[in-house]
Amino acid sequence: MSCIFCKIASGEIPCKKIYDDQHVLSFLDINPASKGHCLVITKKHYEKFNDIDPEVLVSLIKAVQLVSKKIEAELGPDGYNIINNNGSSAGQTVAHVHFHIVPRTEGDGIIQPWEPTSPEGSELDELQKRLRIENGN
Amino acid sequence: MSCIFCKIASGEIPCKKIYDDQHVLSFLDINPASKGHCLVITKKHYEKFNDIDPEVLVSLIKAVQLVSKKIEAELGPDGYNIINNNGSSAGQTVAHVHFHIVPRTEGDGIIQPWEPTSPEGSELDELQKRLRIENGN
Repeated sequence: MSCIFCKIASGEIPCKKIYDDQHVLSFLDINPASKGHCLVITKKHYEKFNDIDPEVLVSLIKAVQLVSKKIEAELGPDGYNIINNNGSSAGQTVAHVHFHIVPRTEGDGIIQPWEPTSPEGSELDELQKRLRIENGN
Repeated sequence: MSCIFCKIASGEIPCKKIYDDQHVLSFLDINPASKGHCLVITKKHYEKFNDIDPEVLVSLIKAVQLVSKKIEAELGPDGYNIINNNGSSAGQTVAHVHFHIVPRTEGDGIIQPWEPTSPEGSELDELQKRLRIENGN
C-alpha cells in the first residue's frame, strides 16, 4: 500500500491534524495555496469523488463544512474555495479523494477564473438530453 | 427578490435542467468552462457554503455526485473538478451557493494549478492549534 493519504489516515505518516471521525480526516496542507489551506480526506481509499459510498460522502461534506466554518471563525478570510480535483487532467496530484478548503484574500490572484464560452443553444439542448436525470420532477 | 438563481429555482427564469429534487436543482452552465459544465444549486437561498443547513447540505452533495456520475457515464471526460466558490475574492459571481462540475480533458489548461508555498513548521503548528476541532479523537 503506497498511497500517501492512506498512510496519513493510518497514522503511519504524521500530519497536522485538524479533525477526524469514523470516516474522515482533516489536516493542514503542508504546501498550502494560502494560510489555513486544509485538506479533508476519506479514511477509506477512494480514488475519485464519484467512487465515494453514500454514507462516507455525507460524513465527508459535513466535515468539510465543519472545518470551513472553523477557518472562517478563526481566520476571517475574505472568501474561500471548496475544491475537489479528479484525475491528473483536473489537477489531482494524490490519487486518493480529497477536498481542499482554500481561504482567500481579495486580490490574492491564487486561482484565476476560467474563460467562459458561449455554445450554441442547440449544443446545450443536445447536452441536456444526454445528461437529464429523470426522477419525476 | 433579485437573485438570479432564486429566479431559476422558482421557474421564473428558464434553465437547461438536468436534475431537481426537494432541495436542489442542477442545470447546464450557459457559459461553460468546458462541454458538460453543470451547476448544482440549493433551491433555498444561501449565500455561501458555510450557511447551508445540514439536511440541505446532504441533499446537495448527493445531487452533485449523481450529476457528476451522469456526466462521467455520458461524456467520459479525462477528469473533472468539483468547485464551490465563496465570496468575490474566491471567484463567486452569483451570491447564491452553487457547485460547479467541470469536465476536463488532458492538457485543456482551463484551470491552472495554484503555486504551492512552504511555510515554517512553527507557523503550521500555530495554525493547527487555532483550527483544531476537538471531538475526542
